[in-house]
Amino acid sequence: MSPAAIEIDLLIEARWVVPVEPHAVVLDNHAVAIDGGRIEAVLPIAEARAAYAPRERVELGEHALIPGLVNSHTHNPMTLLRGLADDLPLMTWLQQHIWPAEAKVIGPEFVRDGVELAVAEMLRGGTTCANENYFFPDVIGATYRRLGFRAVVGLPVIEFPTAWAKSQDEYFERAGEVHDSFRGDGLVGTAFAPHAPYTVSDDSFERIRVLADQLDIPVHLHLHETATEVEEEKKKSGLRPFQRLQKLGLVNDRLIAVHMTQVTEGEIAACAEAGVSVVHCPESNLKLASGFCPAEKLRRAGVNLALGTDGCASNNDLDMVSEIRTAAILAKAVAGDAAAFDAAYALRAATLNGARAIGLEDRIGSIEPGKQADLAAVRLTDIETQPLFHIASQLAYAAGRHQVTDVWIAGRRKLAARELIGLDPTEVLAKAHAWRERIAAFS
Amino acid sequence: MSPAAIEIDLLIEARWVVPVEPHAVVLDNHAVAIDGGRIEAVLPIAEARAAYAPRERVELGEHALIPGLVNSHTHNPMTLLRGLADDLPLMTWLQQHIWPAEAKVIGPEFVRDGVELAVAEMLRGGTTCANENYFFPDVIGATYRRLGFRAVVGLPVIEFPTAWAKSQDEYFERAGEVHDSFRGDGLVGTAFAPHAPYTVSDDSFERIRVLADQLDIPVHLHLHETATEVEEEKKKSGLRPFQRLQKLGLVNDRLIAVHMTQVTEGEIAACAEAGVSVVHCPESNLKLASGFCPAEKLRRAGVNLALGTDGCASNNDLDMVSEIRTAAILAKAVAGDAAAFDAAYALRAATLNGARAIGLEDRIGSIEPGKQADLAAVRLTDIETQPLFHIASQLAYAAGRHQVTDVWIAGRRKLAARELIGLDPTEVLAKAHAWRERIAAFS
Repeated sequence: MSPAAIEIDLLIEARWVVPVEPHAVVLDNHAVAIDGGRIEAVLPIAEARAAYAPRERVELGEHALIPGLVNSHTHNPMTLLRGLADDLPLMTWLQQHIWPAEAKVIGPEFVRDGVELAVAEMLRGGTTCANENYFFPDVIGATYRRLGFRAVVGLPVIEFPTAWAKSQDEYFERAGEVHDSFRGDGLVGTAFAPHAPYTVSDDSFERIRVLADQLDIPVHLHLHETATEVEEEKKKSGLRPFQRLQKLGLVNDRLIAVHMTQVTEGEIAACAEAGVSVVHCPESNLKLASGFCPAEKLRRAGVNLALGTDGCASNNDLDMVSEIRTAAILAKAVAGDAAAFDAAYALRAATLNGARAIGLEDRIGSIEPGKQADLAAVRLTDIETQPLFHIASQLAYAAGRHQVTDVWIAGRRKLAARELIGLDPTEVLAKAHAWRERIAAFS
Repeated sequence: MSPAAIEIDLLIEARWVVPVEPHAVVLDNHAVAIDGGRIEAVLPIAEARAAYAPRERVELGEHALIPGLVNSHTHNPMTLLRGLADDLPLMTWLQQHIWPAEAKVIGPEFVRDGVELAVAEMLRGGTTCANENYFFPDVIGATYRRLGFRAVVGLPVIEFPTAWAKSQDEYFERAGEVHDSFRGDGLVGTAFAPHAPYTVSDDSFERIRVLADQLDIPVHLHLHETATEVEEEKKKSGLRPFQRLQKLGLVNDRLIAVHMTQVTEGEIAACAEAGVSVVHCPESNLKLASGFCPAEKLRRAGVNLALGTDGCASNNDLDMVSEIRTAAILAKAVAGDAAAFDAAYALRAATLNGARAIGLEDRIGSIEPGKQADLAAVRLTDIETQPLFHIASQLAYAAGRHQVTDVWIAGRRKLAARELIGLDPTEVLAKAHAWRERIAAFS
């Protein structure tokens, strides 16, 4: 160490660093210097050792260090309903299983315990940020904040009474309160979360448009999930849901359009031009038979495409490593082109594009100086990822989430050699088991 | 233990046993009694403790015990080419990457070391049987036998010279020799493996038809993998490849038709009637943009549908747990029906249907008295599979292959608490690394 070495909190030395930006680059034997939760520099290990005097040094000699994965669409309290009902037609599943179960359990405790279980699962799989969409965003946000996990929590708006709010005005009142309570928070932000065009009125959408501008937050919306949704709207308003949103002024760079399995060439062009982000949830779309999102067409048109798992009641996991693989291979088949949606792009969709979708591209999504140190280390020496010819290929097509060994959020270690830090797995599992007993008793 | 207790080799006590046959059944707190490599009985733990005096007893209090998974289509020596080239059009990938690499390395050592790496991976993922399709079946079979792994090795027939054989006659000669050398082997059997209709002549197919009957072995064939394959054959012979095989008398219950992404209603009915087995390789079909196999239609028509990973150069893994999930969710989307191809059926496809495809349904594929004790234990208490409402759902939609903790083949433990038995992972990895260096030097 040179006498002029700069003191920093943490130096992570990795066999490979995949910064995502610049695109498709793999840095051999590089280190990431971190101070105050921020990335100070990315440089060769030898240079880093000469330049810095870290208070902590971590060696990852068998690992690729990647940006923490961004799950751009999820309903994490529903992790407690994982696998409650499967293999059913969509409406039977919702009306006879999921909604009745929710009605009996929903409330602050359910939401808190569901998010805890989800955080444990996400950290063990390299995810460091969730774009959340569920009731009780106050409790959801507080839970993420307490656990030191990064999230954007949706402020729900839906045209019928729920346990969260009873009237349109109350949804908006509570949205304002929750937004205010997280103003300036380093980890938890907010977005408007109108449920879907078929459950939200023009009036509410107009209020959301004005308020989202005022508060400078995204609008997180299920859109064109199925062909039925599009047909029903056309019967009602004569417009496709996307057209209706265009008319209402919501097709802009705040819009996070989730699913988009039904999309015309014109709509793709409009998304690209307006700066709309599309969140592709390939495993949910397959499992619910929702349809096939033309992910490669969206990518080629220059639309910002992010990835999400959707909730555990439908998917049934929060495995973004698997979602990367499914997105990449499904996009090829849908495009009829084995060269489509390559490994490096799939990783970008799960990181930097997600960050951009939720308005955090200046803070997270890539390993660049000035950004928050949200990082995941993937061990590539396992039998399942050998021999190793190309890092991006191995990450996208062969690695499993259990090969994630270490995770940091804002420079704080959250997973160390696969052990959760700041979260007792025994306690998390005990709560999950208690909810299971309660739910199984009536379902 | 009662004084009249019967001495047996092994008693495995599991929190759940999923026998696959009877279908969709989960047995709570059951034990499997094993002697001489065979399953003696499946019964409640308390009864088993009274009835048997096992020389070894294994308690799996957090696990589901399932039949070992049957990978019904793979090219395991190619595990050494995992991720060598990806994200390329099919012909570029084959002609500029895979074939040149193969040409430089193929031979007994490559094949042996590739199968070793594959066995290590398969065991760590709950797979206990592989339907193999590659050159040097003598070495492949000998390697499986040495490692105590169950396999059917393909006897290659292709209409051009390779490192394995130089002429049609030599392919058949060598096929006969290899078949004879494994006659009566308890673990390794053989099948004819004509490569594909576009690389095999009518004359060879006719010889195979006669010989397969004489030797009583299956015929393992890539068929209707892509639309191009079907179109090209129609240009050449005026027939679809399937029609040509019908004419040649090969559409019968020996036929293992792999891929079948292009299939008419008539062909589905013909497969069901003739007892053809179809091997669906969903992840390979997606990644190579080969097309969408109508798996649910085949299932409904009563076709025996099995699952395979395909080789690691294309997939890029031997993960049958993931293949179960992908098969189930993809089938729903292709059928447009979320109730299609349910979890219990997906597990059956990966076990008993595979056994039937390769002519081993009387020996493996389910946990039934009289069958070989090929078993895998999946730990379901991990955060990723909690809460737990339904075992089959958790196995198909949430569990990862790393949750497989213990594996037996013919009653012999091959994986114990995730440690490989009889296979040194350090040695396997060192060989993989050496091949990687050699291949990377010229690719």
